[in-house]
Amino acid sequence: MALLYHTPLSPDHQSELGIDPPAALAMADRVRFSELDPLKHVNNAVYMNWFERLRIRYTQEWGLTRYALTGDGPRIVIRSGAIHYRQEMLMDEDYVVTCQCTGFRTTSFTLAQQLWAGGTLRSTFDCVLVLLNQDGDGRYPIPDAMIDRFRTVDGAKPDG
Amino acid sequence: MALLYHTPLSPDHQSELGIDPPAALAMADRVRFSELDPLKHVNNAVYMNWFERLRIRYTQEWGLTRYALTGDGPRIVIRSGAIHYRQEMLMDEDYVVTCQCTGFRTTSFTLAQQLWAGGTLRSTFDCVLVLLNQDGDGRYPIPDAMIDRFRTVDGAKPDG
Amino acid sequence: MALLYHTPLSPDHQSELGIDPPAALAMADRVRFSELDPLKHVNNAVYMNWFERLRIRYTQEWGLTRYALTGDGPRIVIRSGAIHYRQEMLMDEDYVVTCQCTGFRTTSFTLAQQLWAGGTLRSTFDCVLVLLNQDGDGRYPIPDAMIDRFRTVDGAKPDG
Amino acid sequence: MALLYHTPLSPDHQSELGIDPPAALAMADRVRFSELDPLKHVNNAVYMNWFERLRIRYTQEWGLTRYALTGDGPRIVIRSGAIHYRQEMLMDEDYVVTCQCTGFRTTSFTLAQQLWAGGTLRSTFDCVLVLLNQDGDGRYPIPDAMIDRFRTVDGAKPDG
Repeated sequence: MALLYHTPLSPDHQSELGIDPPAALAMADRVRFSELDPLKHVNNAVYMNWFERLRIRYTQEWGLTRYALTGDGPRIVIRSGAIHYRQEMLMDEDYVVTCQCTGFRTTSFTLAQQLWAGGTLRSTFDCVLVLLNQDGDGRYPIPDAMIDRFRTVDGAKPDG
Repeated sequence: MALLYHTPLSPDHQSELGIDPPAALAMADRVRFSELDPLKHVNNAVYMNWFERLRIRYTQEWGLTRYALTGDGPRIVIRSGAIHYRQEMLMDEDYVVTCQCTGFRTTSFTLAQQLWAGGTLRSTFDCVLVLLNQDGDGRYPIPDAMIDRFRTVDGAKPDG
Repeated sequence: MALLYHTPLSPDHQSELGIDPPAALAMADRVRFSELDPLKHVNNAVYMNWFERLRIRYTQEWGLTRYALTGDGPRIVIRSGAIHYRQEMLMDEDYVVTCQCTGFRTTSFTLAQQLWAGGTLRSTFDCVLVLLNQDGDGRYPIPDAMIDRFRTVDGAKPDG
Repeated sequence: MALLYHTPLSPDHQSELGIDPPAALAMADRVRFSELDPLKHVNNAVYMNWFERLRIRYTQEWGLTRYALTGDGPRIVIRSGAIHYRQEMLMDEDYVVTCQCTGFRTTSFTLAQQLWAGGTLRSTFDCVLVLLNQDGDGRYPIPDAMIDRFRTVDGAKPDG
């Protein structure tokens, strides 16, 4: 079966690719030459671009905000993150990045992100995102509809 | 019809996408968030990454060299290029980059590259590439099989 | 004498560095690891970042616009450019990028940019920039004070 | 006093810049246009490039390896890291990145990295690095001279 790039992958499709359990959102792409460093593998900073790209798609798909692109909705900033590099990525490898909300508070939430390639977990990134008012002054509460979606679609639980 | 990413597009598929005439090699991808600059459009330097990426695929597909990836074959360097920006590229746009040899000499050749999106030509890049010995010392002659391929597949003619 | 980074270099300082003739604006920096590609030299696309960075400083210093940073003033876009790669750049090399206006019309102007390192000209980039209204709809005429500055400081002449 | 870029900053110079306590290695640079994203601040992935750049300088200065640049010495890979974003970075801000070893085992060590600007701590990155044989097959023990340097210069202690 051909790999579907740039499109949310169904749970079944994720399972076929060895992603277990399937994530709330998962999309595929392929390693590019410009992402390689002198060690001929994907540079460690590039993983952050991949994870961020899916987070932005996630906040759009979940209807949370389009601030980064259109200026509409609350501003979302990354507060912190823990990254693990398990196996390097090489030129032309196909990969899947995933995103899933694991917890939330009033104005922040936690995402678990993974990177898969060739049926192997290559990297994980767990991060905390904060919602801010557009003027950057003060926190913005997560809308109830989002909390609902975090609970029912992602299976997330309130933190703390 | 779904757009096929990261895969050489047939002449028919290129025609359906408005690429006229079809190029010797053409592949599709989609704009990413990390490629945007503060003006919320794709930064001018990113086009060079896109064009280079297809050139590397081209030199692999044509069997010319895999130097950049494996260290095998002659080294190819870009000597010069002329870029035209005709229309900006925005977030999430699908695009197709093309590559076609238009001329060659003993140790160098000329590629015409195009960027298409939404049936519109967005940018062109015409560049001259030079083959070098692996030690970087002295030129490397283009193999006869390549010259043949430049002529028959790309329709290129000898320069000068 | 220590090299002064991130600061406009005087004509005398430029001459001492072998930049002949000195340019209207010149600033120094150093090659970083993240700019290297698998060939362990600076990737060809990175040159475009370097040249753009000095162009933005140039448009600020000349008082032309701060659109890219603050949204004030006309929008400047690059229309086309010709780049020549003369000698590769390696890790930790110090370099100087220059910028000089060579010609202008009512709503566009031409810049000659150079890249110097170790007293050697490594690359040149000649490009055409266009001024647009902020809404992107229609051209914006170059202010008279700028034309004056192009003439007297850069020694530029009207084109066509 | 002028800020010294691209050069290890003395403990006194660090103190004057508000970096307290001074780190084993610290170097200054300035934010570039190409590092900004559509939110007009430095993109979160760019911090990883800045931290990595100083780590590479650190492994050179400490005499640990030059593998990334010359292929000599053991290969160093990043295993994991925790990043905190405390305050955003804006165009043209001067900043200082620091690096200090805080712990070590037989074949791995921990670095505490910080990002300072305008006398304020903007970000921290704590990461674990692993030494591998050049063929990537098996761990490489940290040389005794390095352990000594970690202890005496950085004040690091053995982990576990």
